[in-house]
Amino acid sequence: MENFEFVSPTHFVFGRGAESKVGTELAHRGAQKVLLHYGGQSAIKSGLIDRIKASLDAAGVGYVELGGVRPNPEIGLAREGVALCKEHNLDWVLAVGGGSVIDSAKAVAVGAHYDGDIWDFFETKQQTEDVLPIAVVLTIPAAGSEASKNAVLNNDELQRKSGYGNNAQRPKLAFMNPELTFTLPPYQTAAGLTDMFAHLLERFFDDVGAVPVTDNLNLSLMRTIRVEAPCVLAEPENYDARANIMWAGMLCHQGLAGVGRHEDWATHGLEHELSAFKPEITHGAGLAVMFPAWMEYVYPENPARFAQYGREVFGLVTTGDPDADALNAIDETRAFFASLGMPTTLEELGIHEEDIEKLLPTLKANKGEPFGSFKKLTMEDAAEIYRLAL
Amino acid sequence: MENFEFVSPTHFVFGRGAESKVGTELAHRGAQKVLLHYGGQSAIKSGLIDRIKASLDAAGVGYVELGGVRPNPEIGLAREGVALCKEHNLDWVLAVGGGSVIDSAKAVAVGAHYDGDIWDFFETKQQTEDVLPIAVVLTIPAAGSEASKNAVLNNDELQRKSGYGNNAQRPKLAFMNPELTFTLPPYQTAAGLTDMFAHLLERFFDDVGAVPVTDNLNLSLMRTIRVEAPCVLAEPENYDARANIMWAGMLCHQGLAGVGRHEDWATHGLEHELSAFKPEITHGAGLAVMFPAWMEYVYPENPARFAQYGREVFGLVTTGDPDADALNAIDETRAFFASLGMPTTLEELGIHEEDIEKLLPTLKANKGEPFGSFKKLTMEDAAEIYRLAL
Repeated sequence: MENFEFVSPTHFVFGRGAESKVGTELAHRGAQKVLLHYGGQSAIKSGLIDRIKASLDAAGVGYVELGGVRPNPEIGLAREGVALCKEHNLDWVLAVGGGSVIDSAKAVAVGAHYDGDIWDFFETKQQTEDVLPIAVVLTIPAAGSEASKNAVLNNDELQRKSGYGNNAQRPKLAFMNPELTFTLPPYQTAAGLTDMFAHLLERFFDDVGAVPVTDNLNLSLMRTIRVEAPCVLAEPENYDARANIMWAGMLCHQGLAGVGRHEDWATHGLEHELSAFKPEITHGAGLAVMFPAWMEYVYPENPARFAQYGREVFGLVTTGDPDADALNAIDETRAFFASLGMPTTLEELGIHEEDIEKLLPTLKANKGEPFGSFKKLTMEDAAEIYRLAL
Repeated sequence: MENFEFVSPTHFVFGRGAESKVGTELAHRGAQKVLLHYGGQSAIKSGLIDRIKASLDAAGVGYVELGGVRPNPEIGLAREGVALCKEHNLDWVLAVGGGSVIDSAKAVAVGAHYDGDIWDFFETKQQTEDVLPIAVVLTIPAAGSEASKNAVLNNDELQRKSGYGNNAQRPKLAFMNPELTFTLPPYQTAAGLTDMFAHLLERFFDDVGAVPVTDNLNLSLMRTIRVEAPCVLAEPENYDARANIMWAGMLCHQGLAGVGRHEDWATHGLEHELSAFKPEITHGAGLAVMFPAWMEYVYPENPARFAQYGREVFGLVTTGDPDADALNAIDETRAFFASLGMPTTLEELGIHEEDIEKLLPTLKANKGEPFGSFKKLTMEDAAEIYRLAL
């Protein structure tokens, strides 16, 4: 078990009606005027934004609105958020939405007391503790950003997608009402399930030996998602299934599922280039295509680890041959993502063989070379994995 | 899944040499002068206290010492700690030890800014946020107090043992070096393992239906302890086994293993009366005796839940009869505790049939009537469970 530090300070308010407590909980923590940050029209049309405004009003917490966060959020809108925080002397950022809105809120919170440009943090990874506190009303379980230390933003001008990690940008408050996820369309639900599951895979496969306490926790979350995923797709208004998935999504990326390990994150790197290249690609869909391809390429490094994964998550019976067991586990993974309605090839995502070379320069800039942990990958390896995914 | 709130703000520094960072981490958080709180001579003789003083000195953090916390800690010493905090204007409490020292530190931290007597909190359960921040150097994995919201103290004058829960007394910092646990005697190691396992049982068995995300996480921790426990007893200096157990012990009681459930805690109530009656009874040893007896008495409420536990933790194959499956799971539980070297009867703990009636009045005062969740217990039920444990 590797040495580690871990902190997850988020205060969770979970269950029916959780969002009605936004105002009182913020006021209790001294919030006076917040940036109310959200995405497109769905949160407005559903009445959610009005309910949150009413909660803020009732508690005497002021707000300035900034909507319009898009999927694969862009640094430009976050810069507008920073300007609003400075102009109105805002003291909290309140994100209402999914991972894109929360990630944008994190960029705003990091930039609010910073004199330079917030993209600096994404380039240099410099740490700061002078970050506005963040509260979240979660509407899409997927990215785990409601408790994680990470944010991923696009910079359209530079044609870059980059991540930034800092414990100081972990949200301080998260309101999680599973009922808010009843209306998520099936494709978005499925992409979220894939993203969660991928967060566990990135932590399970690395170059560290067994860490039973962490591995068992991780595998328990994989089993939970495997079993509950078909339920939320079949019955979108099944409260308990939605609740289990919503909480699991947080646990998949808040960090506990990887402590004491190195973790890998090569596949997220490979996927980020896809959705930077074609912003219409949903992150989870890109992961559903890339993970089985990565697995096929790297499993010979440690087939027994894949065999363990197959046994404990999919209940596979060993064939006696670790390579065969590993390949069976990879087949099950691909079949699981396909069963959710996710794509299985890059062609389905509109990425063709001639595009692969275009992805490598920014991949190298973002991840360095070699990258990954389970197997150290060169750009040649990356190209081969993209080809396997075609 | 029941509605819940959850927060676990502890920053963990885990691994070899973790305690050498005490001074810098406290100074980084603004600590100026701390109460250095510990137990008997072992932490002094091992050189640990000197190493921690050196770390504080090097970082310019002052301290006032208060040693002498006993097992089943007493409120009197905590009152001395409060007086020291007030006299020297101390701003953090630094606990070096196991659950008893940490629980005593929590009482000190809660009382430091309070004008009345700290036992008030244990009597009234009143909440306060005006609590000194607590740091912990953990030397005994067992109670999970390094991250939990709970403290249990004895009041010798009143002959009471009582618990107090408050998120504000969760430690802010915890230094966890598994090497510090290499020298724990086998009996203390085993009692700690039993305590951890019991913290999971209390959360798994209640009157709520399945909560898969929480239950799977809980069961994954039970499996980890079941497998790692024989390793730490056979090889006390096996770093990885000690590390897995140390981290698991925290997770067993920080709260995640029970979110969305009601939890039970009847058996802890039954045990607390034993170690209040005879303070030489180790908490874990009392639990090892009481849990199988409680299980035998209550399992008919929901045999299928016990059957699930038996399958997933001990790998039992179903007989087709849920009652038989439940009884097999209870037998495995008793055998597991016995395999660790724990007692199996009250007689071994020096508690006899004629003592049972003496335990009931304080049990009723502490737990109320009825108590528990899986089955609501009267004092007659409690007496019957004590008799089953004889």
